[in-house]
Amino acid sequence: MSFSEFTGADLAALRGICGAERVTAGGDIGDDFCHDELGGISRRPDARVRICSTEEISAVMRYASERNLPVTVRGGGTGLVGGSVAVRGGILLDTGAMTHILELDEENMTLTLEPGVLLMDIAKYVEPRGFFYPPDPGEKTATIGGNISTNAGGMRAVKYGVTRDYVRALEVVLPDGSVATLGGKVAKNSSGYSLKDLVVGSEGTLAVVAKATLRLLPLPKFKVSLLVPFSGLEAAIKAVPSVIRASSIPTAVEFMERDVILAAEVYQGRKFPDSSADAYLLLTFDGASQAEIDLAMDAASETCLAAGATDAFISDTAERNESIWSARGAFLEAIKASTTEMDECDVVVPRSRVAEFILFARSLRERHGTRILSFGHAGDGNLHIYVLRDGLGEEEWKIALKGAFDDLYAKARELGGQVSGEHGIGVAKKPWFHESVPPEILAVMRGVKAAFDPKGILNPGKVV
Amino acid sequence: MSFSEFTGADLAALRGICGAERVTAGGDIGDDFCHDELGGISRRPDARVRICSTEEISAVMRYASERNLPVTVRGGGTGLVGGSVAVRGGILLDTGAMTHILELDEENMTLTLEPGVLLMDIAKYVEPRGFFYPPDPGEKTATIGGNISTNAGGMRAVKYGVTRDYVRALEVVLPDGSVATLGGKVAKNSSGYSLKDLVVGSEGTLAVVAKATLRLLPLPKFKVSLLVPFSGLEAAIKAVPSVIRASSIPTAVEFMERDVILAAEVYQGRKFPDSSADAYLLLTFDGASQAEIDLAMDAASETCLAAGATDAFISDTAERNESIWSARGAFLEAIKASTTEMDECDVVVPRSRVAEFILFARSLRERHGTRILSFGHAGDGNLHIYVLRDGLGEEEWKIALKGAFDDLYAKARELGGQVSGEHGIGVAKKPWFHESVPPEILAVMRGVKAAFDPKGILNPGKVV
Repeated sequence: MSFSEFTGADLAALRGICGAERVTAGGDIGDDFCHDELGGISRRPDARVRICSTEEISAVMRYASERNLPVTVRGGGTGLVGGSVAVRGGILLDTGAMTHILELDEENMTLTLEPGVLLMDIAKYVEPRGFFYPPDPGEKTATIGGNISTNAGGMRAVKYGVTRDYVRALEVVLPDGSVATLGGKVAKNSSGYSLKDLVVGSEGTLAVVAKATLRLLPLPKFKVSLLVPFSGLEAAIKAVPSVIRASSIPTAVEFMERDVILAAEVYQGRKFPDSSADAYLLLTFDGASQAEIDLAMDAASETCLAAGATDAFISDTAERNESIWSARGAFLEAIKASTTEMDECDVVVPRSRVAEFILFARSLRERHGTRILSFGHAGDGNLHIYVLRDGLGEEEWKIALKGAFDDLYAKARELGGQVSGEHGIGVAKKPWFHESVPPEILAVMRGVKAAFDPKGILNPGKVV
Repeated sequence: MSFSEFTGADLAALRGICGAERVTAGGDIGDDFCHDELGGISRRPDARVRICSTEEISAVMRYASERNLPVTVRGGGTGLVGGSVAVRGGILLDTGAMTHILELDEENMTLTLEPGVLLMDIAKYVEPRGFFYPPDPGEKTATIGGNISTNAGGMRAVKYGVTRDYVRALEVVLPDGSVATLGGKVAKNSSGYSLKDLVVGSEGTLAVVAKATLRLLPLPKFKVSLLVPFSGLEAAIKAVPSVIRASSIPTAVEFMERDVILAAEVYQGRKFPDSSADAYLLLTFDGASQAEIDLAMDAASETCLAAGATDAFISDTAERNESIWSARGAFLEAIKASTTEMDECDVVVPRSRVAEFILFARSLRERHGTRILSFGHAGDGNLHIYVLRDGLGEEEWKIALKGAFDDLYAKARELGGQVSGEHGIGVAKKPWFHESVPPEILAVMRGVKAAFDPKGILNPGKVV
């Protein structure tokens, strides 16, 4: 695709639509808006527009479409694959000012909000009112718009599913500026192709999400965590399928290795409740009664002990829960702080193959001469594997990283897995994604893209 | 679209692919294969092919694509909108012989099966093994392929969601004959556009489903129903949002009017446990412990009584449950048997607007001079409204039906609803569907159709 050159007239036109104070250009655009969380993919947009309403998004898209200018939407910038970086320049639609919660509909149990609302602010708003928004990625400063664009899953997916399962309706702006609502406050829908489900997870390449209506659940009244030490990672992970089958499905099943816990202890400057074992499972159960949780916990503890766990610590005080979960929340930052540069692989494999995959990832440390750390969602098979640069030189690092990634993605494919569980494809994962998809399906995806965005102006260079 | 004429050479070619005994033509095709459950839309296909494998589907599609012949897939033929009728003639792909359950993967909790497996056979297979497939439409002789094609919801959607939520992977044959797997045995996926979620609910217009991998849950160990009589329908339905918020979410919340119960009593030749009240809610709760169900039932009973219920009968014996649920299962057939002809409207509206919609539907009886009966899923807002012909003449019936449908769909739109909750658009609902969707979105849907099926040979005349 070739786009028009962005000119001073374009800047003036955008300022005419949104007001001068919300449109910046060139060096006035903060460096933060040139990359995402990992920083490896970087480009300065020609203009950054802090949009405020559906009408503004529509006007900007109409203008960009007429002028053939690329447009990239950006939420919190917490992505890890370059999905929100304006790699072809042009207009960056910054949703950071669209942070309004518009309606809590208690009868239909839905929440309607703007795309820039942060995940942590959703929880803060709905939980005191007795409601619950289940998707729970580690990164709480991500926006709901970003979560929708990557179909984020998070820790509770094993019981509650992923973002797509909680999006009832989207108000979208198509690349030509037209506005439409996909879905509604309805629990079932069989009315034509589900474009809503297609836009979810499309990484901002098909339409701009201007409003979302989310499905809420009643807030579970009781919640307990169980920290289970094992003498080795393999035994820990192998226990997971039986734990899930033994009782009510746990809310979360995370695995953690000692190396990662130690990194978090250093990063946070505080002790984890126990770090004597090689590996841990962290289970959570929630429910409407203490009785049902106790039942589930007993079954899970028994299953873990039979599978080789050395103990099972119940964590039912606020302090202990905070200490465990804040460490879990700090893993990514802790690993990042422990090295010079890193990249991550976010594959998802069938739950039964997680142990095999993690052991394989460990075996790559020696082969490629890098530290490789991992943690993630043992319950749903979504693994976050970090390859660390440490002291490697530029060239060595490139070779090691590519070698490790080639091996990891090939193994995931062999095990029936997918390239990305929740971070998306963006720019960074395109080579492996394109390898993993048959050409006929890639052609259909490109046809779908063209059906929404015939000029290819929306988030060019991503996914397909 | 204009298609090639089906010739003797085509018949010979199909027989060459599948064997003569599995390909019938002309009068040898049973009348049952010319229409669906309601019968109003009818056309004899040129050939009926009882396919047996992915390879056969692929070979037939490749042939049909080269020859430009229309192809319509048919499962159990239990649809109500003409979706599986070969309205343009050509080849009917009958999945009735593809009834194999291929794999129960206990570790990943998935079931892989062929599209012709009946819903009731899924339950029979997984439940004795301790697993549970939640989607539960009233029609148990429907096939899983048909359920996937309409994204069927059923009674348990209020707690468990719809078919789309349980489809992990699909092996599909594209219109040109190429075979691909969409999704996998994974709980999360953010790897490009979710074509799997698009094919679900696409009514056989985008690709042929050759195999499906379904997500299973552990079978809930305890289950109780609660039959709650109210002195009027309005009070019954108005209680629903508070019931759902009061406690754990019920597995099902059905509403029933006395007229429909009486029709079921006549049809089944047996008494319903109670038919003294004007209207009933039928609630079900399931869970892993009796304690959690008791808690939920108590909260629900209290809420119903406070909302005007005259009683609350617990049904925890197999006999009583059977008597209630078999009556519920017979509603459609009972209504059908009570009249000469009928058509149905399957709208879904926000839960908070169900009472308003049902009262409106009742008010149409007088306006259009027809009996109008309804039952459905009060918990998820999906209503099944039946307009009955009784003694009306041909012309009067047409006018009354169109008048009632125009009013019903306009009202559903006004209330933020959708044309179809689970039966699909097919042929019968196209006029109202096209009215309800903005032209830009219809254009995108047509682009999506063209991306999968550029020649338009797959189930032509349906949806878009």
